[in-house]
Amino acid sequence: MRYTRAFIHTFYETPKEAETPSHIFLLRGSYIYPVAAGIYTLLPLGHRVAEKIKKILREEMDGIEGQEVTMPVVNPAELWKKTKRYYDIGPELFRFHDRKNREFVLAMTHEEVITDVAKQFIKSYRDMPVMLYQIQTKVRDEARPRGGLLRVREFTMKDGYSFHPDFEDLDRYYPRVYNAYLRIFARCGLEAIPIEADTGIMGGTGSHEFMLPSDYGEDRFVTCSHCSYRANTEKAVGEKKVPENLLNENPPPVEEVSTPGITTIAQLMDFFGISREGFLKTVAYEADGKLVIAAIRGDFDISETKLANRLKAVKLELASEETLREKGLYGGFLSPVGLKGKVTVIVDESATLPIPFIAGGNKPDVHLKNVLYGRDFQADDVADIAEVREGDTCLQCREGTLSIKRGIELGHTFKLGIKYTAEDTMDVQYLDSQGNMQRVVMGCYGIGVERLMAAVVERWHDDAGIIWPVTVAPYQVILIPIGQRDNVLNTAQACYEMLKNRFEVLWDDRNESPGVKFKDADLLGIPLRVVVSQRLLESNSVEIKVRKTGEIFECPVNELVARLESIIKELTPQLEGLPYMEEEQI
Amino acid sequence: MRYTRAFIHTFYETPKEAETPSHIFLLRGSYIYPVAAGIYTLLPLGHRVAEKIKKILREEMDGIEGQEVTMPVVNPAELWKKTKRYYDIGPELFRFHDRKNREFVLAMTHEEVITDVAKQFIKSYRDMPVMLYQIQTKVRDEARPRGGLLRVREFTMKDGYSFHPDFEDLDRYYPRVYNAYLRIFARCGLEAIPIEADTGIMGGTGSHEFMLPSDYGEDRFVTCSHCSYRANTEKAVGEKKVPENLLNENPPPVEEVSTPGITTIAQLMDFFGISREGFLKTVAYEADGKLVIAAIRGDFDISETKLANRLKAVKLELASEETLREKGLYGGFLSPVGLKGKVTVIVDESATLPIPFIAGGNKPDVHLKNVLYGRDFQADDVADIAEVREGDTCLQCREGTLSIKRGIELGHTFKLGIKYTAEDTMDVQYLDSQGNMQRVVMGCYGIGVERLMAAVVERWHDDAGIIWPVTVAPYQVILIPIGQRDNVLNTAQACYEMLKNRFEVLWDDRNESPGVKFKDADLLGIPLRVVVSQRLLESNSVEIKVRKTGEIFECPVNELVARLESIIKELTPQLEGLPYMEEEQI
Repeated sequence: MRYTRAFIHTFYETPKEAETPSHIFLLRGSYIYPVAAGIYTLLPLGHRVAEKIKKILREEMDGIEGQEVTMPVVNPAELWKKTKRYYDIGPELFRFHDRKNREFVLAMTHEEVITDVAKQFIKSYRDMPVMLYQIQTKVRDEARPRGGLLRVREFTMKDGYSFHPDFEDLDRYYPRVYNAYLRIFARCGLEAIPIEADTGIMGGTGSHEFMLPSDYGEDRFVTCSHCSYRANTEKAVGEKKVPENLLNENPPPVEEVSTPGITTIAQLMDFFGISREGFLKTVAYEADGKLVIAAIRGDFDISETKLANRLKAVKLELASEETLREKGLYGGFLSPVGLKGKVTVIVDESATLPIPFIAGGNKPDVHLKNVLYGRDFQADDVADIAEVREGDTCLQCREGTLSIKRGIELGHTFKLGIKYTAEDTMDVQYLDSQGNMQRVVMGCYGIGVERLMAAVVERWHDDAGIIWPVTVAPYQVILIPIGQRDNVLNTAQACYEMLKNRFEVLWDDRNESPGVKFKDADLLGIPLRVVVSQRLLESNSVEIKVRKTGEIFECPVNELVARLESIIKELTPQLEGLPYMEEEQI
Repeated sequence: MRYTRAFIHTFYETPKEAETPSHIFLLRGSYIYPVAAGIYTLLPLGHRVAEKIKKILREEMDGIEGQEVTMPVVNPAELWKKTKRYYDIGPELFRFHDRKNREFVLAMTHEEVITDVAKQFIKSYRDMPVMLYQIQTKVRDEARPRGGLLRVREFTMKDGYSFHPDFEDLDRYYPRVYNAYLRIFARCGLEAIPIEADTGIMGGTGSHEFMLPSDYGEDRFVTCSHCSYRANTEKAVGEKKVPENLLNENPPPVEEVSTPGITTIAQLMDFFGISREGFLKTVAYEADGKLVIAAIRGDFDISETKLANRLKAVKLELASEETLREKGLYGGFLSPVGLKGKVTVIVDESATLPIPFIAGGNKPDVHLKNVLYGRDFQADDVADIAEVREGDTCLQCREGTLSIKRGIELGHTFKLGIKYTAEDTMDVQYLDSQGNMQRVVMGCYGIGVERLMAAVVERWHDDAGIIWPVTVAPYQVILIPIGQRDNVLNTAQACYEMLKNRFEVLWDDRNESPGVKFKDADLLGIPLRVVVSQRLLESNSVEIKVRKTGEIFECPVNELVARLESIIKELTPQLEGLPYMEEEQI
């Protein structure tokens, strides 16, 4: 492609709305153009990168026997009511009416539509396993679109759905998807870290997220310094060390203490002269409108995700002072003492040790001493509802310590189980080989194309611009003639003819200075730069620069193709040694 | 692909909701599955065909220097208000709000978004010409979705937009798109007839539709029996023969005739004893809320499309009796006599001849005789507002006669001109080589992928099923072993291994009878059927059947690849001899 014909319009100022490197460089390189908050047009360069990613997605999905379909963006609300997602999902789900006033939604994912297809066509055990996938537009009304393509309201998703005769078959197939995902990210130049994930509102029986560590990521995950344990902070557990010095099976009875004006934990620690571990932290929530009292040891924080999951609550928010007052409770002086039977009480494991806690008095300006689980307060449920902490000991190996990292979620795999095929949702059954009706078991698997593109830029850039991996670059080679002399231009044209059938070549035929051309080449991030100049031609050579390493060397014109081929081979990501999950040999 | 692994679920009953062959066979072959009225999932087979079509679209669009982009489905209403389409388009445009109550629409086409891109990036004459296109989801709330994929509410469109420094450059580029369109349809196995089209609400300076003649088509177009004239009935003109016997420059003055109870044209013809040509037919419309009186000679009907275009009216409907009464008029007894200056009067050319017409009396039960244009009634505008008629003489050659055909609109090309770049819409200007600001000129070009798929089936099917052209077939070859004998199965497998890297092969490895397998092969429409059987193996042969011609012949196993290749070559549509438009050599 000639640069003068290509729709490329770079600029050098940092756009004021852009903060993350991918947002800045994708805008500056004219890869994308904003249409509305969180809604973008992929310009020709951006489209080329997206197509490369889609090709990799297709190859890997086809490689695990995926069959591609296309489902619609516009979904009848009726289907979403069947699975209750119509009610469970908040304003992220766009809802509207057609001309006959029938309700529709814009699909965020396609469990409903694909399960309806499965219900229609999967009748026998012979029809499974089957993996159907698509690469298709998704729409979500995100509250805070940000970071260019990192979090948007409309995007392209590779979403796949597998159907199985039973859980064992899903368990057998799942590692193939997991491994295909690792290969997809690796082929795009990214080392994705698979972590155990929370299954959240999607439900299901097991789930992994594939994370790219990045300061601009919105997700947090823990890794163990010693073993292979990796998990989303929403699900991660660390060791909850026992404060041996505080243990006391038979403390004195509960005692009221007047604590006027003492409201912060720091003030309480001073007042009572004991450390955080000695306090019972109590928080009141409304879970789907119902009051819930959650208590945890003072050195921990409550994980609202864990709590919501434990309660199977779609909507969890802090209880208002008004709601508390209705039950005769006071924020700041809460404790679970005396509440069981009146409201739901859930207690973290850490607070069930025999520690005589300091707790709220359930009336203003009063705290209680010597509050003991079992003796002085009871729970409807005891569970892990604690936020994991940086430095916690790993529960898996009991040796390493956990550290918390920020990351970009690149993909997500779920063992959905029968969440969408159960009798009270879409009710999908088949006839097994014995002639008995059985329930279909599902998995679902998603990767966002534009986010993946942005993540590649987050991982691969420098101050001058993008450094595309050869596998996803819009062009592999940029050919730059220096000056306007005939023999330079003729050689450049000859090089272009020679290269264009083997590589994707952007030929910078502009009448611009070398400085401008080099700057644009770096900004655009084309992996290989080939320069043709008068000086080089005197030795019948051209110059190759490798964008990733910065290496520059001369190369005889007649060896150019071979050299470029060998460099591209070197630069192509390797697929050995990834943290693959073991696949059963079939 | 093994049939037992493929997501193929044929059935034999005609689905009750399906009427057209494409709808019936695409459902029966499990190519598509309905999600809601006019909204479909493309199942794996349908998706494969769509991908073939998209590949052809990309190759041809890239061949005319198109650069692919991806624009969003969700558009801010604000952009659509700028071009006024937000107000001009009726309920086909889905409208809704986001969580912050900002207005959005689902894009029916992308003039707004692409012109906004052009406004941002096209600054200089050096930036043009440029063609940007996409293959992307469109949503339209059609009043009457029908015919399976023929008219739907969500579909994939190849829409392209070209930007030019002036009209001459657009005129130079336009034939390249026109010819690419002819090649696209030809490569899909369709002989598209390009016709002059009405530009309708899209506006612009010239337009063609590419029609496939079909009884199930919703469009009507005329063709001349003698010359190359082809036009949409909404735009077509035929010769309006002069009824010489009725001409009379100086008829007696107007005379009132009482016509109580006479309301139909047939009754009037009887009563007055003259033919249709002697009557002045007058119809009252409301054009964007304004009363308009249209008059035409009695042997013609008014074309509402021509009338609306002439009036530049977005909304045209018959005037209500109530509206008429407000102006003292009576339906059934209308004439333009005495109305000029009171309401807008538009008269077809046919009614301006010196014919003393019989016309309505503008009061109940009264008609007028000897009404003469110029003398007795005047017009604000004289124009061609007549519906073309079957059998009219062609105006272009004055020799042939016009016939009216039904057709499926496969594609549409528009010279938009400055409709979207004008000052009062998106206002897109650039700096020419002399340093002067000039307005950007546009073209736009669209093809619906799913409709094209359905059109191929309308054109290529028989009673047994689809007959895919080799270029768009989901698989080119279906390999059918007969029976379960080892040598048959082994030979089938060997054939599969031999063929699979050269062709897309569907290997029918089911344990089904030959009858079932043959029936499915015909229904699915795979172009080439290869049968392996015990009998054939005795002579070391297999059998090839060509779906299109029905020819069956034996072929030695070792010649199979070469034979299939040569048949596919023969079956591949030729691109010579299409009715190409002349391109300027650049």
